[in-house]
Amino acid sequence: MQILTKIEDLRKELSVFRRNGQRIGLVPTMGYLHAGHLSLVNVAKENADVVVMSIFVNPTQFGPNEDLARYPRDFARDERLARECGVDFIFYPEVPEMYPEPFFTYIVNEQMAQVLCGVSRQIHFRGVTTIVAKLFNIVQPDVAVFGQKDAQQAIIIRQMVADLNFPIRIIVAPTVRESDGLALSSRNVYLSPEERRQAPVIYSALTKARAAVRDGMNSATEINKLIRSTIATASLARIDYIEIVDDRTLTSVEIVEPGTFVAVAVYYGQTRLIDNIYLKER
Amino acid sequence: MQILTKIEDLRKELSVFRRNGQRIGLVPTMGYLHAGHLSLVNVAKENADVVVMSIFVNPTQFGPNEDLARYPRDFARDERLARECGVDFIFYPEVPEMYPEPFFTYIVNEQMAQVLCGVSRQIHFRGVTTIVAKLFNIVQPDVAVFGQKDAQQAIIIRQMVADLNFPIRIIVAPTVRESDGLALSSRNVYLSPEERRQAPVIYSALTKARAAVRDGMNSATEINKLIRSTIATASLARIDYIEIVDDRTLTSVEIVEPGTFVAVAVYYGQTRLIDNIYLKER
Repeated sequence: MQILTKIEDLRKELSVFRRNGQRIGLVPTMGYLHAGHLSLVNVAKENADVVVMSIFVNPTQFGPNEDLARYPRDFARDERLARECGVDFIFYPEVPEMYPEPFFTYIVNEQMAQVLCGVSRQIHFRGVTTIVAKLFNIVQPDVAVFGQKDAQQAIIIRQMVADLNFPIRIIVAPTVRESDGLALSSRNVYLSPEERRQAPVIYSALTKARAAVRDGMNSATEINKLIRSTIATASLARIDYIEIVDDRTLTSVEIVEPGTFVAVAVYYGQTRLIDNIYLKER
Repeated sequence: MQILTKIEDLRKELSVFRRNGQRIGLVPTMGYLHAGHLSLVNVAKENADVVVMSIFVNPTQFGPNEDLARYPRDFARDERLARECGVDFIFYPEVPEMYPEPFFTYIVNEQMAQVLCGVSRQIHFRGVTTIVAKLFNIVQPDVAVFGQKDAQQAIIIRQMVADLNFPIRIIVAPTVRESDGLALSSRNVYLSPEERRQAPVIYSALTKARAAVRDGMNSATEINKLIRSTIATASLARIDYIEIVDDRTLTSVEIVEPGTFVAVAVYYGQTRLIDNIYLKER
C-alpha cells in the first residue's frame, strides 16, 4: 500500500494501471475508519483491480458552527486498517493541495441539497459534490463506492454523475451497524455512555416503521407519528427531522410507494446522528 | 468526418483512439460557424490527433429574455465547413440527450460570473460551465480550445478546470476579426447594414486605449473615459459596460498592470456585441 499526498503523484501512479486496462475503484472517506468504511473497500475490491481510498476531512462541507475542528482523526490507525483490508493507495492530501487560493468553482444541486440534512446544513452538499467531483477528476475511477447511511449524499452524487456525465459507475453499499442496530459513524465517538445506550432507538423506530408498512400502513403522516413517538421514548434524543421521501427526487411523499424511504436526523447533545431505511424497495 | 448525436456512440468511437494513445482535442461551439471557430479547429489539430467539434445551442446559458429561439442555425453549412477544415467528429446532440429530466446539477462560480457580462446575463455562465463540464466528461479530451473573444468565459473555464482538477489542457486562441476590426461572432448576422457599418468602433476604441497605455496612460478611469468617448461617436452604439480588470480574478483594477485587460459590451439595437483587448500582457 502506498500513501500519496500530492495530486500529481497519484495521477502518475494510476496512469500505469489505466494504460494496462485495469479498473480503478475509489472509496472517498474523511478517515477515522470503521467497519462501514471497510465494507466499502470490500465492494470496491470486488468491482475493480486497484483500490484508492481518499482520506480528507473536507472543510467545504462543514458549516461555520459545525464540528470541523474537532472531527475525529487518527491517521496511524486508518493506515493500519486500510492496509489490512487491502487498499492499494491512500490519497491523503492537505487542505492547500485540494483548495489552493483562489478557489471559486462549486457544484450545486439546489433542489436536492436544501431538504433533509440540507435544512440545518446549508452548504454541506455543495461541499460534498465539489470534493467528490474533484476526487473523480483526480482519480478517474471506473467505479466509486458510497454508503447507504448517507442516503441523501449518495442520491445527490448519483444525480451529479448523471447530470454531468461522469463516466463512473456509482455503487451504494448497505449500512453497517453495531449489534444493537446503531449505524456506524465516525461521530458515534462523541456520544456519552448514556447517549450511546439510548442511540439504538433510532434504528428501532425505523424497523418498526418498516414492519408497520408491511402490515399495511401506508400514510406518511402515520408513519412519521410512529417514528416520532418511538424516538421520544429515549429521554436524551432530540429529533431534527423525520422525512419520508422518494429515492430519486428526495421530494416528500404522502403515500408509501416503491422507492420510498424514511430518513431521520436525531441530536444527542451536540452530536447529530442520521439513519434511513427503505419502506418499500423499487 | 462522422456526425454523432448520441453520447454513447461518441464515447464508443473515441475509446478506440484513447486506447491507441492518441490525443483528443475538443472545440465546443454553438454552430453557425465562422472563421473564428475554424481557427480554434486549427489550434486543436496542432495539439491533438483527433478533433471533436460539438455543435449545441445550449439552452441553459440563455436567459428568459435572450435570443435562444432566434439564435442563428445552419447545420448543413456547419457540416461542410467543419469537414473542409478537418474536423474528425461533429457531436450534434439534441436537447433531451444533454438535459434529460430531471436535471438538477449545475457548476457555479459566484465570484467571476456576476461581473462583466454576468451583470446583464445572470444565469449565463452557470450554463456555460455546466455544459462545458458535461462535454469534458463525455469527450474526455486531452486539450480543449476556446476563443479569446469570449474572455470572461475562457477565464471562468480555466478556473473551473483548476478548481475541479479536470485533467485537460485549456488553450485560448486569439480573436479573429473582419478586415475593419469587428470581432467575428455568430450574432453579427443580426446587425442592420448601418449597425454593421458602425460596429468597428468597438475595436477602434480598444486599440486606441491600448495605444494610450503604451504612451503612458495607466489610470483605469481615464482609459474608461477614452473608450466611452470613442464608442459614443457611433450614433447607434449603446454601451452596456466597459470594465478594466485583472485576467486571473476578473476584479476591477485602478492602475494598469501586467494581466490587465479591458472588456466591453455594446448594444446595437437588440444585438449585444462583446470584445476585449489586453492593455498590458503578463
